[in-house]
Amino acid sequence: MKTYSINSIGQEKLDRLFGRASCKRNRGITSLVKKILRNVQKSGDKALFAYTEQFDCCRLNNICVQRSETAGSAKIIPQALKRAIGRAILNISAFHKAQKRKEISVATMPGVKCFQKILPIDTVGLYVPGGTAPLFSTVLMLAIPAKLAGCTRIILCTPPGKDGAVASEILYVAQVCGIREIYTVGGAQAIAAMAYGTETIPKVDKIFGPGNQFVTAAKMIVASENSGVAIDMPAGPSEVLVIADSSANPAFIASDLLSQAEHGPDSQTILITTDSSLMTMVKKEISKQIVTLPRREIAMQSLQKSFLFLANSIDESIVLSNRYAPEHLILQVRNPEKWVNKIRNAGSVFLGRWSPESVGDYASGTNHTLPTSGYARSVSGLSLESFQKTITFQKLTKKGLSNIASAVIEMADSEKLEAHGNAVKIRLLSQKS
Amino acid sequence: MKTYSINSIGQEKLDRLFGRASCKRNRGITSLVKKILRNVQKSGDKALFAYTEQFDCCRLNNICVQRSETAGSAKIIPQALKRAIGRAILNISAFHKAQKRKEISVATMPGVKCFQKILPIDTVGLYVPGGTAPLFSTVLMLAIPAKLAGCTRIILCTPPGKDGAVASEILYVAQVCGIREIYTVGGAQAIAAMAYGTETIPKVDKIFGPGNQFVTAAKMIVASENSGVAIDMPAGPSEVLVIADSSANPAFIASDLLSQAEHGPDSQTILITTDSSLMTMVKKEISKQIVTLPRREIAMQSLQKSFLFLANSIDESIVLSNRYAPEHLILQVRNPEKWVNKIRNAGSVFLGRWSPESVGDYASGTNHTLPTSGYARSVSGLSLESFQKTITFQKLTKKGLSNIASAVIEMADSEKLEAHGNAVKIRLLSQKS
Repeated sequence: MKTYSINSIGQEKLDRLFGRASCKRNRGITSLVKKILRNVQKSGDKALFAYTEQFDCCRLNNICVQRSETAGSAKIIPQALKRAIGRAILNISAFHKAQKRKEISVATMPGVKCFQKILPIDTVGLYVPGGTAPLFSTVLMLAIPAKLAGCTRIILCTPPGKDGAVASEILYVAQVCGIREIYTVGGAQAIAAMAYGTETIPKVDKIFGPGNQFVTAAKMIVASENSGVAIDMPAGPSEVLVIADSSANPAFIASDLLSQAEHGPDSQTILITTDSSLMTMVKKEISKQIVTLPRREIAMQSLQKSFLFLANSIDESIVLSNRYAPEHLILQVRNPEKWVNKIRNAGSVFLGRWSPESVGDYASGTNHTLPTSGYARSVSGLSLESFQKTITFQKLTKKGLSNIASAVIEMADSEKLEAHGNAVKIRLLSQKS
Repeated sequence: MKTYSINSIGQEKLDRLFGRASCKRNRGITSLVKKILRNVQKSGDKALFAYTEQFDCCRLNNICVQRSETAGSAKIIPQALKRAIGRAILNISAFHKAQKRKEISVATMPGVKCFQKILPIDTVGLYVPGGTAPLFSTVLMLAIPAKLAGCTRIILCTPPGKDGAVASEILYVAQVCGIREIYTVGGAQAIAAMAYGTETIPKVDKIFGPGNQFVTAAKMIVASENSGVAIDMPAGPSEVLVIADSSANPAFIASDLLSQAEHGPDSQTILITTDSSLMTMVKKEISKQIVTLPRREIAMQSLQKSFLFLANSIDESIVLSNRYAPEHLILQVRNPEKWVNKIRNAGSVFLGRWSPESVGDYASGTNHTLPTSGYARSVSGLSLESFQKTITFQKLTKKGLSNIASAVIEMADSEKLEAHGNAVKIRLLSQKS
């Protein structure tokens, strides 16, 4: 891990360090993904079976997971894990339920009523990655708000293991969250199926969930095609930024940096501290803790690209963090609440020494699907709202229309949109007659 | 305008009619826009001056609009238009102010507090198209919520006329809305400038506003580059769908269809009615009203691609409308409120005979930046929220962490993310010691 001092680093160097170089899309991937998208759009299920054989190395007869399979998963999951999942569901539900907004209605002038309705998005597609371990926590973070929002149809796509089956943990969590439609298909082909529809998989209105670079590329491409399918957010490698003062515990900080670093070789971890001796101790702790980690190779690669900053004050550290706009921000400082109102750009924030990032990844209640690559400047993490849309309404009375008429006609005339003005004039005339 | 009956039309034909064929992006445009984006990214202001000369046919020395110019605009605008704009500002402000959300805070379990803060997006870029008439209403719809949200820096880009100046109406509205940073640059080059920044124009966090196909393509491309810049929403040609029963006034309907049709040759207008004689009368009214319209050529082209449906009931008409997911929906039926809860997909809805679409385009209070091309299924129109983001926070006490610890450790172990569990275990151990 490289160390820098804020006082000696130039702006240009800082921009480069904060630049998220790793999120540029590979051209080879883009062209392969485009080919997959076009094939699934053209050949539907047939293409899905072929890609599953090619990429997941298994031959399927059916991509629909049967109810009996899903139900059977409950028998395999250990009680302790069931209890853990139960706890997570309670907490995540409580925080997301509280996000329910009130619909508003305003009489902007006499006889002119404007109001809005908040509705669930009808059909949503959840993507859950496969890989070395079944990431069932993703199911929690997507399925719970989708259910709470009241989406009519919720489908879940996830790649099969080499044996052709979906991990029991994923099936179990899907079942307890009330997801009944599960398809054994992963990668860019799953995104294509949800974007365009196939004989088996319905076209959805919005696609949610993380994935490898093929999945991410596929989501970005379908979102840019103007095909009517939205995506949750752009995705890049995961990030954590820790701000610590001399009160912080170096072992805690090291454990937080490592839990980010183990995600993947391109995960980014940053520590900003006002205490140079803490920095040394954190490095020592990392060396100590990393030894026993099963994913230490991955963590090591990630840490090589990460860095430590020595700053002059917590104020300055927060300014830097706002500039970086981290996905996760951990404040291990005295009185962390004091700084809450200075934080301008971040996905999710962890306050104080007893709030490690991993509680938010699994069970505290907040969502773990968060903006990366600096998108925290403009994009929010997943919430109940991500599964909803707002429709505005207006109802004018006769009198209301005559109250607003001159304003509309005047503006329409100035924009040279005469038919816009006519729609008001014709009504006014009929009113008089 | 072609006429169809719901009873005889096939599903396939319906899908085709509802398909928004015109929103596919032209390859020639994409490659030109990509070139413009790369040039502005590389050469900054220099590229902006060159493209302005090439596309807007005027040579500028400076792309910053001077304060004196903006202030001078007030002298040129007629009093009646000033009053109209003032009325619109009051109504739009009232409806968008009401959209302010409460921040929530939940103790999901003892010692585990989750809360959210709602913040403005720091730097936003508003694009206002030029063209035959200055569309200053766009300034209202973008600037008012941006100001209400509290965005720190709001910039506005708009192309110059052939004389190199920005229309006074745009300057005036920008000024009364409190926008102080205006740049005379349009097209894809303006989007590039806001996405990457130049010597003069700052890189923004999110880009808003409509535009021609070059602007739209540029927005979609920068949004797909994972460069940290978000856009308001995908944009396609404008649309209206009118549902009418025998109580409707054919002249009113005709005026609404025409006010949509005059927008552009690819605007889409649809009428669904339960009354075949009304259909005939609407067609007659259109022929009558179109004659005097300055933009009748455009309206004519648009109407050629539009269609009328005969349906069996209002219920069925709403089902069709939900399937189409129109940008604008007008209900000219008895008791329009009765149907509000059946509407699932629409951008903005106009209830009853005294609520023409044009009131929402200018002054009722609702936003006129709305999802097209079927995106109303998953995307909301612009609102206060579009200029905000949410940050989630969590704060655990010692006790809170021990309450949630087993759930987190159990789940992290199952996902084989041992460092995630360690971040909790290390803290627990230190607690005991």
